[in-house]
Amino acid sequence: MKSILIKQVLCNGTLSDVLIEGEVFSMIDTHIETDAELIVDGKGMAVLPPFYNGHTHAAMTLLRGYADDLPLFTWLSKYIWPLEAKMTADDIYWGTKLAVLEMIKSGTVFFNDMYWHDDATIRAVEEMGVKAAIGMPLIESTGKKNIDYCFERLDSLTRQGALPRNVQVTVAPHAIYTVGETLFKKCVDYAERKGLVLHTHLSETQQEVDDCIKKYGMRPVEWLDSLGALQPNLVAAHVIHVNDKEMDLLAENKVTLVHNPVSNMKLGSGVFPSAALLDAGCRIALGTDGCSSNNNLDMREEMKTAALLAKCHYRRPELLPAETLYRMCNLNCSDVFHLQSGTIEVGKKADALLIDVTDERMVPCHNLISNWLYSAESSIIDTVICNGDILMQHRHVHDEEEILDHAAQCAYNLKNKLKP
Amino acid sequence: MKSILIKQVLCNGTLSDVLIEGEVFSMIDTHIETDAELIVDGKGMAVLPPFYNGHTHAAMTLLRGYADDLPLFTWLSKYIWPLEAKMTADDIYWGTKLAVLEMIKSGTVFFNDMYWHDDATIRAVEEMGVKAAIGMPLIESTGKKNIDYCFERLDSLTRQGALPRNVQVTVAPHAIYTVGETLFKKCVDYAERKGLVLHTHLSETQQEVDDCIKKYGMRPVEWLDSLGALQPNLVAAHVIHVNDKEMDLLAENKVTLVHNPVSNMKLGSGVFPSAALLDAGCRIALGTDGCSSNNNLDMREEMKTAALLAKCHYRRPELLPAETLYRMCNLNCSDVFHLQSGTIEVGKKADALLIDVTDERMVPCHNLISNWLYSAESSIIDTVICNGDILMQHRHVHDEEEILDHAAQCAYNLKNKLKP
Repeated sequence: MKSILIKQVLCNGTLSDVLIEGEVFSMIDTHIETDAELIVDGKGMAVLPPFYNGHTHAAMTLLRGYADDLPLFTWLSKYIWPLEAKMTADDIYWGTKLAVLEMIKSGTVFFNDMYWHDDATIRAVEEMGVKAAIGMPLIESTGKKNIDYCFERLDSLTRQGALPRNVQVTVAPHAIYTVGETLFKKCVDYAERKGLVLHTHLSETQQEVDDCIKKYGMRPVEWLDSLGALQPNLVAAHVIHVNDKEMDLLAENKVTLVHNPVSNMKLGSGVFPSAALLDAGCRIALGTDGCSSNNNLDMREEMKTAALLAKCHYRRPELLPAETLYRMCNLNCSDVFHLQSGTIEVGKKADALLIDVTDERMVPCHNLISNWLYSAESSIIDTVICNGDILMQHRHVHDEEEILDHAAQCAYNLKNKLKP
Repeated sequence: MKSILIKQVLCNGTLSDVLIEGEVFSMIDTHIETDAELIVDGKGMAVLPPFYNGHTHAAMTLLRGYADDLPLFTWLSKYIWPLEAKMTADDIYWGTKLAVLEMIKSGTVFFNDMYWHDDATIRAVEEMGVKAAIGMPLIESTGKKNIDYCFERLDSLTRQGALPRNVQVTVAPHAIYTVGETLFKKCVDYAERKGLVLHTHLSETQQEVDDCIKKYGMRPVEWLDSLGALQPNLVAAHVIHVNDKEMDLLAENKVTLVHNPVSNMKLGSGVFPSAALLDAGCRIALGTDGCSSNNNLDMREEMKTAALLAKCHYRRPELLPAETLYRMCNLNCSDVFHLQSGTIEVGKKADALLIDVTDERMVPCHNLISNWLYSAESSIIDTVICNGDILMQHRHVHDEEEILDHAAQCAYNLKNKLKP
């Protein structure tokens, strides 16, 4: 069994040795004597839980900076959709590899993805060594053939042994405005029967709410409730425009809400009502959304932005303190995807970051977590460990140059395809 | 005369050679043949204007992470003020050196400071090689002796040759609620007579506005107008709670407003009305404020936050596009402090960053400035040049370890002084 011993690293407030055996933390003590396969010097470093990205579209890194600072509909219809329509499985493979490279370098070891060509995404994830939940978006207007194909894929990928050990699939009805009652209900039933996470966009814009009321005579969360979709396996991204009754429904049914502050702010979608949702008892995770509305996958930046937005919106600087936010973006996400990780604790899956506490952004150290969330940047991450595998050490990730070259070429070709 | 030739660097959209002679850019061309003292390989890099931090309290890096996520008055009265009261000139010297180290590493070459012990700050700035405008806060309640001392310092520092070439002093009445009519008027007259910038905090909280109306029967900007303070040499930080009439007054009188989005959001002070101020024709610069309410001095993060806040607040994703923001935080700040810099242009002072465009956050490159502002982090800065001097190359800054050690020790000692 592979083993890693991290010597004299700052761990939960004390200098400790941390032993990883196989996929788990097996011992944390002031001094451990053992013959580990690999000894890592933890001097000047702290070991911390990494990030779990609750909602993204990884391959959209290819669209990073392609269209910014535009009104929402122009952005979508003139730029994003036409380019996406040209994307091949190969583009998605390299776009996802670029995304995962960036994730690893910024401390993320798991992401919940929604995009086409799941085969390309799965291959990229497996090669890079991170963990992921992958779902192809179900959109009614893509036609029956495509929908049937998505379910066939789900049938085939949920067979014993069909998936790499770090990948799970999700059922991903895109949103309540792109999926009708029958299909959404089918997704809910399918997810329940197979024990899968149901991943959707929810109440991202006021328009969505207005249209839902017009069409169904009820608000989006109420409509989902009427379909039996509000369950602990539901991961709903955005969730901005919800009223008190909807908040209570989300809390009672233990739905996980994924807050995407940067994307919501950049697109002017509205303000995630974090304080009200927490008061109602909702479970909140964090996500970056895709790179066309962010424009990176940096979860530390996402946490700082979430804190700033809540404090600003409610005029209450005490809201969303650093420790709470950090738990949201590791423990809460880990829980809903059953990753058994998110803390540095014996028995938990060995997901960890070693961060350089001697960097100028970490000095002085009145409060390590506050420095990490509010002051640092992800370049202070030296080492990233996922399920006991070292994905980055001394900021070096395997095949970096090849990924950058291929991804840049794919993006360049894509744009050329749009030229008249 | 010292000279630097940067070979084949991406400059304003084309691969160019950039020649710096003395303190200025002397030639930018596709190919320059010359015997420069230093040749810098620009391969894989872009040359961009650096940042100018319009409002900060540099030495407060010592309080980084000391007190976060607290209600405003608890934060100030229980934590910040008691610690500040214990700060010596030596603390301020090392705190400022730590701040400037962080500034250089995140691409800032100028800052507008307000803090005590200007001698310590000046010494730190001169040793580090950046540029600064330095003002000691004038606060009525510190007593006549202290106020007199501040003006004596200003008298002495404005004598020919008293200041290092990269330092200017400002007259810095702290705020309208800490400085009365007579003293504020004296500051305005002094600044005008000596041709100095007048630096103050303005309309940061609603309380400040309410108190002003109660005391003077007019709003803060109107009160400043009545004193003759609204002039092109006025640099006003925060400026959140202003009405239409005040915006017009600020625009007509060409006042420079410094937007500090991270601090304002973190403290729940309110939302800087950027769109309305721009519509009114106001000139806006950007600042980080001090590290106790940010908690870093990263101007790139400040720009992204400014963009997000405006787009979110007004629900208009097209507001504050990347190029506009970048001009705000270099040209607009450079102008009011007469730095003759802020663009990469022949004849301008040679302030520049070389950034690594091969970093994963910069790939693909649909739009360089958008990638830089919205996606990158400051660790992609390889080289920082200020007035023709290289302050950082390959991310190495002089005396880094010594600064970190001393600053950490100062912060530790300070906290110990508060123990019962």
